[in-house]
Amino acid sequence: MSKRVCVSDFEEQARKVLPKAVYDYYRSGADEQHTLHDNVEAFNRWCLVPRVLRDVSSVDMSLSVLGQRLSMPVCVASTAMQRMAHADGEVATARACRTVGTAMMLSSWATSTIEEVAEAGGGPGAPGVLWMQLYIYKDRELSLSLVRRAEQAGYQAIFLTVDTPYLGRRWDDVRNQFKLPSHLSMSNFSTSTLSFSDGSYGADSGLAVYVSKAIDPTLSWDDVLWLKRNTHLPVILKGVLSAEDARQAVDCGVDGILVSNHGARQLDGAPATLDVLSEVVHAVGGRCDVFLDGGVRRGTDVLKALALGAKAVFVGRPVLWGLACQGEQGVAELLNLLKQELHLAMALAGTDLSLLGPVDKSTMGQSELLTLNQNIDTAP
Amino acid sequence: MSKRVCVSDFEEQARKVLPKAVYDYYRSGADEQHTLHDNVEAFNRWCLVPRVLRDVSSVDMSLSVLGQRLSMPVCVASTAMQRMAHADGEVATARACRTVGTAMMLSSWATSTIEEVAEAGGGPGAPGVLWMQLYIYKDRELSLSLVRRAEQAGYQAIFLTVDTPYLGRRWDDVRNQFKLPSHLSMSNFSTSTLSFSDGSYGADSGLAVYVSKAIDPTLSWDDVLWLKRNTHLPVILKGVLSAEDARQAVDCGVDGILVSNHGARQLDGAPATLDVLSEVVHAVGGRCDVFLDGGVRRGTDVLKALALGAKAVFVGRPVLWGLACQGEQGVAELLNLLKQELHLAMALAGTDLSLLGPVDKSTMGQSELLTLNQNIDTAP
Amino acid sequence: MSKRVCVSDFEEQARKVLPKAVYDYYRSGADEQHTLHDNVEAFNRWCLVPRVLRDVSSVDMSLSVLGQRLSMPVCVASTAMQRMAHADGEVATARACRTVGTAMMLSSWATSTIEEVAEAGGGPGAPGVLWMQLYIYKDRELSLSLVRRAEQAGYQAIFLTVDTPYLGRRWDDVRNQFKLPSHLSMSNFSTSTLSFSDGSYGADSGLAVYVSKAIDPTLSWDDVLWLKRNTHLPVILKGVLSAEDARQAVDCGVDGILVSNHGARQLDGAPATLDVLSEVVHAVGGRCDVFLDGGVRRGTDVLKALALGAKAVFVGRPVLWGLACQGEQGVAELLNLLKQELHLAMALAGTDLSLLGPVDKSTMGQSELLTLNQNIDTAP
Amino acid sequence: MSKRVCVSDFEEQARKVLPKAVYDYYRSGADEQHTLHDNVEAFNRWCLVPRVLRDVSSVDMSLSVLGQRLSMPVCVASTAMQRMAHADGEVATARACRTVGTAMMLSSWATSTIEEVAEAGGGPGAPGVLWMQLYIYKDRELSLSLVRRAEQAGYQAIFLTVDTPYLGRRWDDVRNQFKLPSHLSMSNFSTSTLSFSDGSYGADSGLAVYVSKAIDPTLSWDDVLWLKRNTHLPVILKGVLSAEDARQAVDCGVDGILVSNHGARQLDGAPATLDVLSEVVHAVGGRCDVFLDGGVRRGTDVLKALALGAKAVFVGRPVLWGLACQGEQGVAELLNLLKQELHLAMALAGTDLSLLGPVDKSTMGQSELLTLNQNIDTAP
Repeated sequence: MSKRVCVSDFEEQARKVLPKAVYDYYRSGADEQHTLHDNVEAFNRWCLVPRVLRDVSSVDMSLSVLGQRLSMPVCVASTAMQRMAHADGEVATARACRTVGTAMMLSSWATSTIEEVAEAGGGPGAPGVLWMQLYIYKDRELSLSLVRRAEQAGYQAIFLTVDTPYLGRRWDDVRNQFKLPSHLSMSNFSTSTLSFSDGSYGADSGLAVYVSKAIDPTLSWDDVLWLKRNTHLPVILKGVLSAEDARQAVDCGVDGILVSNHGARQLDGAPATLDVLSEVVHAVGGRCDVFLDGGVRRGTDVLKALALGAKAVFVGRPVLWGLACQGEQGVAELLNLLKQELHLAMALAGTDLSLLGPVDKSTMGQSELLTLNQNIDTAP
Repeated sequence: MSKRVCVSDFEEQARKVLPKAVYDYYRSGADEQHTLHDNVEAFNRWCLVPRVLRDVSSVDMSLSVLGQRLSMPVCVASTAMQRMAHADGEVATARACRTVGTAMMLSSWATSTIEEVAEAGGGPGAPGVLWMQLYIYKDRELSLSLVRRAEQAGYQAIFLTVDTPYLGRRWDDVRNQFKLPSHLSMSNFSTSTLSFSDGSYGADSGLAVYVSKAIDPTLSWDDVLWLKRNTHLPVILKGVLSAEDARQAVDCGVDGILVSNHGARQLDGAPATLDVLSEVVHAVGGRCDVFLDGGVRRGTDVLKALALGAKAVFVGRPVLWGLACQGEQGVAELLNLLKQELHLAMALAGTDLSLLGPVDKSTMGQSELLTLNQNIDTAP
Repeated sequence: MSKRVCVSDFEEQARKVLPKAVYDYYRSGADEQHTLHDNVEAFNRWCLVPRVLRDVSSVDMSLSVLGQRLSMPVCVASTAMQRMAHADGEVATARACRTVGTAMMLSSWATSTIEEVAEAGGGPGAPGVLWMQLYIYKDRELSLSLVRRAEQAGYQAIFLTVDTPYLGRRWDDVRNQFKLPSHLSMSNFSTSTLSFSDGSYGADSGLAVYVSKAIDPTLSWDDVLWLKRNTHLPVILKGVLSAEDARQAVDCGVDGILVSNHGARQLDGAPATLDVLSEVVHAVGGRCDVFLDGGVRRGTDVLKALALGAKAVFVGRPVLWGLACQGEQGVAELLNLLKQELHLAMALAGTDLSLLGPVDKSTMGQSELLTLNQNIDTAP
Repeated sequence: MSKRVCVSDFEEQARKVLPKAVYDYYRSGADEQHTLHDNVEAFNRWCLVPRVLRDVSSVDMSLSVLGQRLSMPVCVASTAMQRMAHADGEVATARACRTVGTAMMLSSWATSTIEEVAEAGGGPGAPGVLWMQLYIYKDRELSLSLVRRAEQAGYQAIFLTVDTPYLGRRWDDVRNQFKLPSHLSMSNFSTSTLSFSDGSYGADSGLAVYVSKAIDPTLSWDDVLWLKRNTHLPVILKGVLSAEDARQAVDCGVDGILVSNHGARQLDGAPATLDVLSEVVHAVGGRCDVFLDGGVRRGTDVLKALALGAKAVFVGRPVLWGLACQGEQGVAELLNLLKQELHLAMALAGTDLSLLGPVDKSTMGQSELLTLNQNIDTAP
């Protein structure tokens, strides 16, 4: 096994060890995958302008997010069904996050239970932090039961997915007629229908069929208010891409906004998340924290997102590659790599978190650190 | 035969079953095919900005076009000589349109008669809608006889092609010395010269020779007025690409404008249709409906065209691929795929037809839904 | 031999029949050949917006240039040493021009004499037109003798090359140690040194050595005045790329300006000729005619150059490919192809020469016909 | 060995003769090497607009830099450990610079001593000029001793590297576990730890480990003042990329600024040096000279940098390729090639050093000579 020096190395190794249908499921974006590609490329449109001769012998990257202390502004995004990547699945991820000192967002569609993950990764006094991702089911009580279990298990926030009234069309999944391997199920649900293990999904993507049966396409702003009324945990909207929706979210009292296009897996042709980050940050105007996921693959990507106003970023697929490569150790290695890359990027740029304050409304990004890449058209 | 999940899959299968000269004829654009490429790429310059938390459990896509009720704003463009793609040719296409509930524009150069197609696809009370595409022949009475037959057979509109005083130069057709297979002819004409079956076309594209012999390059605005005087059916100009011509068309009393560059088969270097749609819509200012063809391959393409002011769009080549793959069933499958893609696009974007009203003159496109893709230069 | 349907087909066939060093010499641009590529690509940055419903049954392309009547606004640029391409060399080219009814500019470095070419291609009352390209030698009397011979042989204008104080560095020529085949010489010169046939050029491009020995790098505006004083023929400057130089040229009394970067063979990194055409046209302000060469490969290219203010265009390399393919017949075929392409382009665009009048100073190009290609970044 | 006609030919030959790990070390940029690519491409975004009919029989390229007379505005950048490229290493480079009449900047990390190089390349009255590149070690006295030795050996300036508090992450070096071949060492240091020859660098890039042990990441503006106080030689900051830092540098009394991103080897995503040159020049406002390195590969590149305000440019990698190809002779050949290319570029552009005066603050670059390349998106 050759040394892994960058996130792409993790993906390359993961691709070799994962069954094709699993790799396809994790990797794919919707339709022609333009947004999948754009999410990554958007970062290359910006240059970091280094400042020199600032003492960078110490670069502190720790911060408080949603009331929790993290060792770096890089968190783990919710990704579904992690036991397809490694036998230890979400439990391994949670352990790695605890080791590295960052937060893990657990998917409603995990192949480990809320309680198993809590035991592995969090709990009072543990350095790890757990957040719960939530889908709203047609059966509202079912959704509420997930929230209750998360509260009781010590999860510290609810990330409500708002971009999935239907599942986006991922061609590979349709072709593969994707479904869970028979020994796995979505562990938080008790019936085979809800745990995605009854097998009757026809010739389509099994998950698309599952969503059309179980998830509620009537989801609206009223449901956000309903959720806020029904939990004491902070509620963050996951999947906002416009200033208008961000403003309405703040007016509804949400505690955070995650700028996300669902890893480019829903509407192909949606903007890259980095491309809309600034306008969401400006629309929110500091009334809650704004986060970003999508396309983060390097320490410099993290720094660019922070410079454009994100409080922290989330990584999804890279964590799956780490998990597939080497379970808990692979995830920890992946997260530490990003941490080291971010440290080096901040040191070489002559900046740190304290200098990355609120972005001035009058400028696109922080004028000191960022400049548009004038060579973008000729990137390799 | 593997599952077809996108329009490209239809083309790929069609390419395998069609004789090379037929596939080349259907596929080719003029000259170096820059406009052919641009028609498709123009859609990628726009992003769709999804709005979330709008109840999208029901997305109505039906609408009235030229007085007829359609199940979706996607119609079938006229393409010539469809029996080269499948033995049932235009009759199969008409049946599929009737099944799906949309309109078919029949080419003057069909290999089925106006009456055969009417029997298959339309008629009073049938859910299908038929429109007639018209070339103006040097023999004006001949053109008028086509109009009369269309009127009597129940066609509901005339689409007058205005961009073909000469045939564009399609290199493959010149190389292939393209002509109709000997068992076929343009069925609406009684002489072998007019039915493109006398075989004497030298070393050039047979169709280019046919056009130079039969079609009238003196075509002018007077002919539009003449046609309007000679039919009670709505007359739509097919092949307008400039605001100036659109304004003049409206002043001539036309009932609609189809923004088209003839599938990029006439003047290479003409703009992509989507690139001029907005200015035509603004020039028309609501005095008639504006349609678009060229490059529509995905549900999101349809949505983008609607958001830029098109009443409905037309698809040409994709229908031929469906026809070549599986006749009537192939066309119906293709149209249903686009319908499902459009439904998903509208649901994930949080919009529907009622929200896609007239575009504000002061903006390029509807500000809420569309934004320029900042990553366009780095598309895959 | 397969049918030639476009200029590229001529080049492809020529490449197969020409010795490598000859093909390289004709094809190459300077250094990394960025300008060579840009000359061609610049045309793709513009779209032609067709106007419809204008009677285009007759499209007149004939015009008067420098007092001579031509059948089309496409002339033959001077290219050196044409007998390397075909045994008949410049004589064949002149005959073809006479047949097609356009003008040929003869290179000072021809492998046929001024008089041989005059006999083949021009003379009083002949439909062909001959112009003489001139280099200024260190020996001024030598240059003047070329002018005198051209005058006496019936040439109608002098195109003075002003961009070659030294020869541009064409890597292939250096690698090939390019020199004339031993049976050929620059026929207008009597000594082996001046006729490029003494063979002593070391390991460099022979022509570069020739230029450094014979051509005068002190060439200045004074020499333009000197030439004007010494001939009654119109004098056109060949190789102007800036508005400032164009203005000064007009002030010196020149009779025309040929916007040219010497086929991208001199300074790599110079602008594409089409990119500077407008500003030269505007600087000249109608005080003399402006011509263009560089990158013209299609009828639509010609139309774009005319729409941006060129009186006529010159083609160089395409003529060499025609010559290599089939001598006089090949050149005539090539020129007729461009003529037909231009005819079709003008007809499909709904324009003709009378509509392509002086370009308005306030706009970049003629607003009606041209628009910037918004899809340029995604060209195939 | 085939003739070398351009810098790329030198690299191609060098690649064949160098051990892979050495070639990788010299060639690599940091991380994904976007900035490495951009440094080169930035030059292609500009066109040179030639002026004609200016007597260019004589083009003087000599100039005074930091008080020394050079034959051209192209100097040799410091590159580390040159004996890996050729047995004669820095001594050969110094001899070649003396032959060509330009300046060499010697790396602190040379595999030849300061004194050896002085003997070979400089000394009072010699046409060559030597400058010393300086890293600030945690042991300040060590750095000062390098300065003292350079002063005594006749070096004429100190270039202080300010962009390397940590070493950038070059993936190939990590994979190769790069270290010096055992027979070489950084000759200016007496201990194996400091001379990069103790071998204990683990599985990482040996040089990255070396830097983290020896080089001082607390480097700040105070150290610039300290260095100025401790030497009578001019001090130039190497590694400035922003107007703000340039202004502060001038306020600190530096004698020059080298706009550099360390050959794209430190922070990937930093701007191309040419892209920030103008703003640094404007910020400095003539109070000291501004130099540039990064991506200079052609004579036209040099001219573009001068036209944007650089006093002179530095070339790094090309010199290494020349050294690897043929030692002293290879470097001299490389430098003479650039000299000839620059001469030709200036002659064909109709300009010389006296015309490339201070750039007007109100324009981006010198309006006469430069224009943005409108075809950049379609470069080959």
